[in-house]
Amino acid sequence: MSLLVVGSVALDDIEAPAGSVRDVLGGAACYSSVAASYFTRVLPVGVAGRDFPPEHLQFLASKGIDVSGIESAPGPTFRWGGRYGSSLNQRDTLFTELGVFERFQPRLSAAQRRCGLVFLANIHPGLQRDVLEQAARPRFTAMDSMNLWIETAREELVATIRKVDCLIVDEGEARLLTGEVNVVRAGESIRALGPRVGIVKRGEHGALLFDDEGVFAAPAFPLSDPADPTGAGDCFAGAFMGSLAGARRIGARALRRAMAFGTVVASFCVERFSLDRFRSLDRSDIDARFAAYRELTRL
Amino acid sequence: MSLLVVGSVALDDIEAPAGSVRDVLGGAACYSSVAASYFTRVLPVGVAGRDFPPEHLQFLASKGIDVSGIESAPGPTFRWGGRYGSSLNQRDTLFTELGVFERFQPRLSAAQRRCGLVFLANIHPGLQRDVLEQAARPRFTAMDSMNLWIETAREELVATIRKVDCLIVDEGEARLLTGEVNVVRAGESIRALGPRVGIVKRGEHGALLFDDEGVFAAPAFPLSDPADPTGAGDCFAGAFMGSLAGARRIGARALRRAMAFGTVVASFCVERFSLDRFRSLDRSDIDARFAAYRELTRL
Repeated sequence: MSLLVVGSVALDDIEAPAGSVRDVLGGAACYSSVAASYFTRVLPVGVAGRDFPPEHLQFLASKGIDVSGIESAPGPTFRWGGRYGSSLNQRDTLFTELGVFERFQPRLSAAQRRCGLVFLANIHPGLQRDVLEQAARPRFTAMDSMNLWIETAREELVATIRKVDCLIVDEGEARLLTGEVNVVRAGESIRALGPRVGIVKRGEHGALLFDDEGVFAAPAFPLSDPADPTGAGDCFAGAFMGSLAGARRIGARALRRAMAFGTVVASFCVERFSLDRFRSLDRSDIDARFAAYRELTRL
Repeated sequence: MSLLVVGSVALDDIEAPAGSVRDVLGGAACYSSVAASYFTRVLPVGVAGRDFPPEHLQFLASKGIDVSGIESAPGPTFRWGGRYGSSLNQRDTLFTELGVFERFQPRLSAAQRRCGLVFLANIHPGLQRDVLEQAARPRFTAMDSMNLWIETAREELVATIRKVDCLIVDEGEARLLTGEVNVVRAGESIRALGPRVGIVKRGEHGALLFDDEGVFAAPAFPLSDPADPTGAGDCFAGAFMGSLAGARRIGARALRRAMAFGTVVASFCVERFSLDRFRSLDRSDIDARFAAYRELTRL
């Protein structure tokens, strides 16, 4: 089962205690596609500017990702800059320049429409719904969002949320969306909006899954030397979705395993800047850490 | 194996979104003793003022706790007041009146000296060491501390830490003590100070255990309606220590189970103000939630 990913393709500037980088590969579509590529065939849909370095596309292609859906448009690539504080829990956005992403209008090819899994990374909820409507009966769909859309496009956002199987948001977004301070109530409120699965990401504290079976808590994989949390949430979502490709049934067991794979792949992401950790990472590294993660939480 | 607990006996005023209470039973010795009482015989050592309501001692005794070590001294009982913000993660201390606790000098009876388990709740590190020296070859010892002692009595504190098997502190204390922002490094640094076990409590995000086998992550038990987090950390420590009483060997397996029991009992504590939840709680409730907690984290 292939995975369709729709989202941003970006060039990032990042400042963190471990160092600073400029013009590095970023964007939710890239992070989640690379994370998912360890599990299944990934078809990202996005747009890059004419300034987008071809070696980034080559890197994605080297992971078996079908880069034909990353359109090249006249104008600059989406750029984002961020700075992390010493604990890596606090991030200031330094700039956001939409560039060609501002006029992004995803049009799916026949192969993209047929994907059994769909991940709608954080873009305008109207575009997310438009993609969902183009997709041909996917087996499992998930979406992310952000405070901007919760505040400025709530109605469209809620209408889109109603149509997906799974909403994946961070704790602050879950609170703003549901009006619930308590994370358990926020998770339940997400399900009341429509999705049968709600996931609340909590950064270095892991993630919670809410489904028909109740709550599942996935602590983060503890790292002694994190470098750059950028994209960790997208890697979580990408590996979560990718690992579902191998499931006969997308039920409690598959979802819990997917939470663990999401957590493990996100932990690799954080070890280096940008997507650099994935340049040398192979599936056996993921499986070894998955085994270690099992031990970390085994009673 | 009996558990010796040394710490404060208090009357608390608490303000939280769920309500406000005055003059309620509190203090680390009371919270941890009640939590431990579900697992083993507990011998607390503490001091209360003449104003301490006898029904509080009766409540402790009703849990099978040996209250003979709670001395009654002329003067007022230790009083503490705190106020929680809407998320319950932020707490302001409104007042601290030491009362008779200021001149607390624990002197152990023969039975107290013979306890196989010792938990030194948060008191001056000099007093903690004094208690350790009175104890007769305990099998496993643990201690808590607080920022005040890290800042004002570091040398004595580090000397005491060197003598225990386990240090249990919250994340902020772990950082201040070790100078490490990263929680994994902080946990490892705690072990470098002497204890073979380090535990870092993270409130609603659970706790991490560091031992010879590596790291174990215990997410918190998710609650949709928490009322009052006061004493949850002490209940965690009390149940953690209490559950070790039944272990043939205090190794990785027993420590991981103890983390889970600590987490579960702490979650009950938070459901009501003060120690009220324990008035109606019996061991079967704890075992039922322990089973639910296993499912919560089972991959």
